Amino acid sequence: MKKIINNTEDIVIEMCQGMVKAHPDKLTFNQKIKTINRKVLNKNKVTLISGGGIGHEPAHAGFVGEGMLDSAVCGDVFASPSINQVYKAILETESEKGTLLIVKNYSGDCMNFDAAAEMAEDDDIKVEKVYVNDDVAVEDSDYTIGRRGVAGTVFVHKIAGASAERGDDLLKVKEVANKVIDNVRTIGFALTSCTVPAMGTPTFKLDDEEIEFGVGIHGEKGIAREKLVSADELAKKMIEKITSDISFEENSEVALLVNCLGASPLQELYLLNNSTEKALSDKKIKIYKTFVGNYMTSLDMSGASISLLRLDEELKELLDGPSDTIALKINK
Amino acid sequence: MKKIINNTEDIVIEMCQGMVKAHPDKLTFNQKIKTINRKVLNKNKVTLISGGGIGHEPAHAGFVGEGMLDSAVCGDVFASPSINQVYKAILETESEKGTLLIVKNYSGDCMNFDAAAEMAEDDDIKVEKVYVNDDVAVEDSDYTIGRRGVAGTVFVHKIAGASAERGDDLLKVKEVANKVIDNVRTIGFALTSCTVPAMGTPTFKLDDEEIEFGVGIHGEKGIAREKLVSADELAKKMIEKITSDISFEENSEVALLVNCLGASPLQELYLLNNSTEKALSDKKIKIYKTFVGNYMTSLDMSGASISLLRLDEELKELLDGPSDTIALKINK
Repeated sequence: MKKIINNTEDIVIEMCQGMVKAHPDKLTFNQKIKTINRKVLNKNKVTLISGGGIGHEPAHAGFVGEGMLDSAVCGDVFASPSINQVYKAILETESEKGTLLIVKNYSGDCMNFDAAAEMAEDDDIKVEKVYVNDDVAVEDSDYTIGRRGVAGTVFVHKIAGASAERGDDLLKVKEVANKVIDNVRTIGFALTSCTVPAMGTPTFKLDDEEIEFGVGIHGEKGIAREKLVSADELAKKMIEKITSDISFEENSEVALLVNCLGASPLQELYLLNNSTEKALSDKKIKIYKTFVGNYMTSLDMSGASISLLRLDEELKELLDGPSDTIALKINK
Repeated sequence: MKKIINNTEDIVIEMCQGMVKAHPDKLTFNQKIKTINRKVLNKNKVTLISGGGIGHEPAHAGFVGEGMLDSAVCGDVFASPSINQVYKAILETESEKGTLLIVKNYSGDCMNFDAAAEMAEDDDIKVEKVYVNDDVAVEDSDYTIGRRGVAGTVFVHKIAGASAERGDDLLKVKEVANKVIDNVRTIGFALTSCTVPAMGTPTFKLDDEEIEFGVGIHGEKGIAREKLVSADELAKKMIEKITSDISFEENSEVALLVNCLGASPLQELYLLNNSTEKALSDKKIKIYKTFVGNYMTSLDMSGASISLLRLDEELKELLDGPSDTIALKINK
């Protein structure tokens, strides 16, 4: 295993410290409960908490800041944070308007975020939850009942974040988050496996010309092992997969996220964006806004995912709202 | 070779199209001369042009925009743009105040940018040039007389960009750019080689526990093949190498860039940032601002570089100036 690390057991803390040291004006790190919070919390808005196992950087801590999240709770690599961590995160970021937990749909995360929410409710804190399940690759999987939550989660962070920032109440922020979840779909593929540090060897093995189509963000199995094809063919196939799951009216507008799974260089992502734009144009789907880069990665996996979010006027306005986080800045 | 591409000969155009399609509000692409320019050029400021072979994404096109460059000229993968390309780029972005060419110190780039500048001067366009040579790894190399220009170039883009944006004249912008060059140093290392698409095989080969210390951004040989050590030891060694080349007074302030060479995930880069901060603290060097991420990559190479820029009040002010580019946004 070739990684820039010290000891595998120190990765969470050293990585979080490294993030906060790079952005001391924006973020703080609570080493005891492993949360990365906004430096200045706004107690007059709905609090947004997300998180999960680390290994998806910049998610989730990279989306903490104005216009997006208030707190990211960090589990070990690819492992849910504990009930106690999430509960403490809710307590330390409590606001007058209540808290929304944005949970990627994995059994471990759902269980721990749910239990923590119950504990907080016993303390008379208003808590609501949404579960992101945007991955069209598989219906159920090793770690989920129902679909997995992947890169589309970033749109939930962004749009629910803008709703909270403008002063919406808890139920409205939750409604908006669920509207994003209802309208976002993602499909990914891997050229190479990731290597979980504590394991030290690749999670799976692909031949020289083989890809895993429909891979999950922890290296979970996808739809099929297939031959690597051209960027144009890949993009077309991914758009087909998404549009067979969710319908798009002619000239309907979408937000497009071409997301790196960790190790694919920007050159290839921009090229894939070009192919994706052609595939969408063929389908008469209009792109309102495009995002290309590292948003929801899977350690050092080579590959990419494509997410499409169907937009209406409300979602467009919230997507365009200002955000000032490490990984996503949108100007006022 | 596993890459998300169509044909190797189409990479430049398809990648540039993909970049501009992602940011149609900010960038335009001239397919004939392969330049990516600001959508709206400001003819009342000094024009800044940079570029070189592609393969370093987001550099250089990702730094085109308000507060940084006006134009990036794109050669083939790791190959200088032609004289004619650079000459045409100068013509199409000509401003009343003249043009500064920011050239990374490689023989091919220097030759072509120099010749293009001469041609433009014959047309009575004022053109000045600066040559970035921040890599402390080697004195001369396969492709350079003198040091190589690497990630420190981004600081030149940023700071000269702010100088041009505030209305400085050509000689002042050049002076500021050279001040950055005099004060910036970089050292990098590779965990794996990159693969140049047209070659199809890795440029060099490293054993399972081996790194190339002092690697160049085209996979050029560095100082030594060494055993992979911990992030803390790596950071310490890199800071030693830089500080043995350039002196820092106690409590002097620096800008720090922890730059991905293409395929190392953000998790490892933030962890390396944590190690680097400790190494700088031991040397009583104060960090004024930190940048972590993909800035000057080398295709799909795993590894990172560290750049330090010694700051004074003028450089701090210009570093903090607003920029609105794909790859570097600093708020007003």
